[in-house]
Amino acid sequence: MKKISVILGSKSDLPQVEGGFMLLDDFKIGYELKILSAHRNTAELKRYVKGLERRGIRVVIACAGLSAALPGVVSSYISIPVIGVPLYSKAFKGIDSLLSILQMPKGIPVAAVTVGSSGMINAVLLAATILALSDRKLKARIKRYRGVIKNK
Amino acid sequence: MKKISVILGSKSDLPQVEGGFMLLDDFKIGYELKILSAHRNTAELKRYVKGLERRGIRVVIACAGLSAALPGVVSSYISIPVIGVPLYSKAFKGIDSLLSILQMPKGIPVAAVTVGSSGMINAVLLAATILALSDRKLKARIKRYRGVIKNK
Amino acid sequence: MKKISVILGSKSDLPQVEGGFMLLDDFKIGYELKILSAHRNTAELKRYVKGLERRGIRVVIACAGLSAALPGVVSSYISIPVIGVPLYSKAFKGIDSLLSILQMPKGIPVAAVTVGSSGMINAVLLAATILALSDRKLKARIKRYRGVIKNK
Amino acid sequence: MKKISVILGSKSDLPQVEGGFMLLDDFKIGYELKILSAHRNTAELKRYVKGLERRGIRVVIACAGLSAALPGVVSSYISIPVIGVPLYSKAFKGIDSLLSILQMPKGIPVAAVTVGSSGMINAVLLAATILALSDRKLKARIKRYRGVIKNK
Amino acid sequence: MKKISVILGSKSDLPQVEGGFMLLDDFKIGYELKILSAHRNTAELKRYVKGLERRGIRVVIACAGLSAALPGVVSSYISIPVIGVPLYSKAFKGIDSLLSILQMPKGIPVAAVTVGSSGMINAVLLAATILALSDRKLKARIKRYRGVIKNK
Amino acid sequence: MKKISVILGSKSDLPQVEGGFMLLDDFKIGYELKILSAHRNTAELKRYVKGLERRGIRVVIACAGLSAALPGVVSSYISIPVIGVPLYSKAFKGIDSLLSILQMPKGIPVAAVTVGSSGMINAVLLAATILALSDRKLKARIKRYRGVIKNK
Amino acid sequence: MKKISVILGSKSDLPQVEGGFMLLDDFKIGYELKILSAHRNTAELKRYVKGLERRGIRVVIACAGLSAALPGVVSSYISIPVIGVPLYSKAFKGIDSLLSILQMPKGIPVAAVTVGSSGMINAVLLAATILALSDRKLKARIKRYRGVIKNK
Amino acid sequence: MKKISVILGSKSDLPQVEGGFMLLDDFKIGYELKILSAHRNTAELKRYVKGLERRGIRVVIACAGLSAALPGVVSSYISIPVIGVPLYSKAFKGIDSLLSILQMPKGIPVAAVTVGSSGMINAVLLAATILALSDRKLKARIKRYRGVIKNK
Repeated sequence: MKKISVILGSKSDLPQVEGGFMLLDDFKIGYELKILSAHRNTAELKRYVKGLERRGIRVVIACAGLSAALPGVVSSYISIPVIGVPLYSKAFKGIDSLLSILQMPKGIPVAAVTVGSSGMINAVLLAATILALSDRKLKARIKRYRGVIKNK
Repeated sequence: MKKISVILGSKSDLPQVEGGFMLLDDFKIGYELKILSAHRNTAELKRYVKGLERRGIRVVIACAGLSAALPGVVSSYISIPVIGVPLYSKAFKGIDSLLSILQMPKGIPVAAVTVGSSGMINAVLLAATILALSDRKLKARIKRYRGVIKNK
Repeated sequence: MKKISVILGSKSDLPQVEGGFMLLDDFKIGYELKILSAHRNTAELKRYVKGLERRGIRVVIACAGLSAALPGVVSSYISIPVIGVPLYSKAFKGIDSLLSILQMPKGIPVAAVTVGSSGMINAVLLAATILALSDRKLKARIKRYRGVIKNK
Repeated sequence: MKKISVILGSKSDLPQVEGGFMLLDDFKIGYELKILSAHRNTAELKRYVKGLERRGIRVVIACAGLSAALPGVVSSYISIPVIGVPLYSKAFKGIDSLLSILQMPKGIPVAAVTVGSSGMINAVLLAATILALSDRKLKARIKRYRGVIKNK
Repeated sequence: MKKISVILGSKSDLPQVEGGFMLLDDFKIGYELKILSAHRNTAELKRYVKGLERRGIRVVIACAGLSAALPGVVSSYISIPVIGVPLYSKAFKGIDSLLSILQMPKGIPVAAVTVGSSGMINAVLLAATILALSDRKLKARIKRYRGVIKNK
Repeated sequence: MKKISVILGSKSDLPQVEGGFMLLDDFKIGYELKILSAHRNTAELKRYVKGLERRGIRVVIACAGLSAALPGVVSSYISIPVIGVPLYSKAFKGIDSLLSILQMPKGIPVAAVTVGSSGMINAVLLAATILALSDRKLKARIKRYRGVIKNK
Repeated sequence: MKKISVILGSKSDLPQVEGGFMLLDDFKIGYELKILSAHRNTAELKRYVKGLERRGIRVVIACAGLSAALPGVVSSYISIPVIGVPLYSKAFKGIDSLLSILQMPKGIPVAAVTVGSSGMINAVLLAATILALSDRKLKARIKRYRGVIKNK
Repeated sequence: MKKISVILGSKSDLPQVEGGFMLLDDFKIGYELKILSAHRNTAELKRYVKGLERRGIRVVIACAGLSAALPGVVSSYISIPVIGVPLYSKAFKGIDSLLSILQMPKGIPVAAVTVGSSGMINAVLLAATILALSDRKLKARIKRYRGVIKNK
């Protein structure tokens, strides 16, 4: 069963987030991937996000570069945790998407992580710790993973 | 008749943009003011913006602070010129809203001006030059205004 | 029963986070407040954090200024969600604590929000959405709160 | 008939803006290209810009790097919309030209877009939406283009 | 006889540069003050600057805030030394005017100093060292001034 | 006998600090290298650092990238001099680790040097000047080294 | 007997560093204060610094704002530890002095701390840990001080 | 006869400034090149700079990277114009050397230009305009050069 929805602002952002999919698989967390821009697919994005809770999705990971409105817009539609992953673009090395994701107005929470592939890995870990609050087996897998990391 | 729609992300932003309303009045340009957040009033914002062209509005001035998704979201709904005015917030002196407004993805044009009240004045002037392309009297008023400025 | 632990790096940081305690009360979420510096109370911090899961705490909100090692250190001790709130200091307007909290190495997830009191409000909302995944009444309260915000 | 004038500060800037010419062609908008520096060709630039309105040019797209005085100087000569495209230079990745273009004094409006080739694409779209206010066919072409973008 | 021309972009900038006038008087250097904006008084600025060499002016000190095109535009008209003093504006604490003045294209030299009143003092000293290359009495006055500074 | 402990946050940071080991050898200063992350090896790090003074270690050089909590955490455990070397990571060119190392709270001293390999060289020199306060031969070696540098 | 020399670039910097003198007194460390600018008192500074080692001074704390050449120049004259404290100036909130102090070339070590009064406190602590390497009583005082801090 | 002294902080900086030597030759301006670091060759630098005026040198161009104390130290020794050229280093793309050169204290004037090879070209032009105040032939050469530039 799918627990996590990963939304990408653009297909060209895929290489920055692929590592996260492998980690989701390692954690045996079901997920689905959608490519929907906050600016180019507004209606479809709204419809998709509004349906997530009913379908059992528990956490959204929204990844976007540039002006990065995606995570905030997603958060405005639902009341489940939304994690925002800022992605690199050419001009400002991710500081643009980072600030766009961090500077949410009061009332629209987004959990920000760092830029690019490292951010995606930690976004998945964050989502996993949230799911693990009611999933002992997942918690065990997270602890094992973090044990392995210690010896790297 | 109203030609310009000014949309504000939050009522608390009013003091930063008031100077613009006086200039719109000086230019005898009809306008309307709406306070609608891209994150808190998504449905209402969409409905409002989608109806603008039909009602004869020709330019939108969208003003927002922080993550400032408003101008980009407005631009994604319509094909008339959208001017984005970044506003000051406490944390980053407007650099956050500035980057959010500037870093639009290809295909979603927003005309950015500088932060705060100076930006609003120039946003109004920019809107006026657009309207004046088909309004000789307004063009004359703009030229008179710019003549006055020269002696300041 | 306490579900959330709020850890502050320094007593002097209290004014920046007080608004969050009121929101936690509004949401009827039990919480406890600890003042423990990552640098000045390392042993006590470790002991405290290591005991959190067993005591039923489900989310930690760690708030710190300057070098802001607190959220990362907390995250290194446990596998429940850790939210980091960067606080303002004099020198760099929070950009220092913001980067310290965001730039976690892979494997140590921290959910960052913006600087200061706005960040604290959204940290509480984020924590609430996490708890609400298994608490229908809380979810209803969050939705009511967000409905109220829309009319502000 | 030419509706748009594209002015470039330097021939070496051409690679950053070429994509815009293709889009102007797609939109069937007549344009002309001039290479004139605000610092090195002041007299010629003034003569050229002062003659634009009379010749039917309706929007200027001024592109410049480094100190990027060009868009502001152009705007000081005429009362039609001026769009400024900041270009990359080696030292500061476009933040220099960006600030120069954004920080216009009150009374000298310039519509800024982002740095480099993405900025040029959106500058053309912005110019197109302005022209489309009195050109139904162009408006249809813009809508078609934006429809295509949605599926990218 | 006047040797130095001080050009100010706006009357409102006067408080930031006044200290320089006192130092010019201390050095017994004749100077004139003009308030001419690069954007609002282009024709008058050009006429004025083009006449400077013939009238015996040997150094120009051009002071401007925001986009600060003034020093570069002045330098483009003449071949005597031009010193640029960036001034503070609200939004970016002078980093905008600083970059605009520093990032001159090759071939348009401007001597930049720091922002605001400290910059103006050093601009005057710089101009004085230039004039002193052919004025022994002025050189003695500069050395005396610098001797006094050492004991401050 | 070992006088200096070099602690690295991650094995992948080795290439940035290798030059320092050669200089330590040139100075005939005994040292040991440990790879211990402040986040991934907290218990082991504490045990190791707490034992340093007793074993005769007199200076610690702690090198870390990203959030760079390592030098501060080390300094919180001991009362011998701790030098912090910020390392480059992809996202922010070391400005993240630099600020994390510099912005220590009052009471937790860390001696910061610049980013990467240049910082490591100067960290070693700094450590050497500290040891040389009670080691005349080492002082002579430092002076010889600095004499050689003058002719480079 | 004086063990530490505190050098200040300008008398006006005193308020930013006063807290450090109280801490030096608490630690019973003898020190002397000199006000000598790297730019305005070059000869005197050189003479003074070159005599420090012979007179038994073991650590220099050099404090300066703006371009902050002082700590580096001091370090170029001697081979005892030099700690650099960047001070606030108006324009860039200490980022200017911070970078000037951090970006030492290889071979000229300076131990940097943060900007202003917090930096001065940690500079004193750092100096104290250096002196304490051969002073057991001082080490005890430092440990007591740090114990007190823990309960703040 | 040599009129200009070019001082370089390090031999490794040569590639960034070579273009300036060709321009000096084109202008038929006699110059000499010295490689002297403000930190590594303090005594020799002082002796050299103090002798410049007597030998007929009229302008100094001082080029340095990193902390870039060189131009300010040179300016502190003499009362002829000093132009500072900030050079690129790895860590901060010249923003470090730029701020060090710009942030001179009152009384120590340095004429700053932009970073790297473009800065060097304009430094030479600036020096040439200074020399040309009393050299008609050089003025003619400068005007010819700038005429050529206009057609680039």
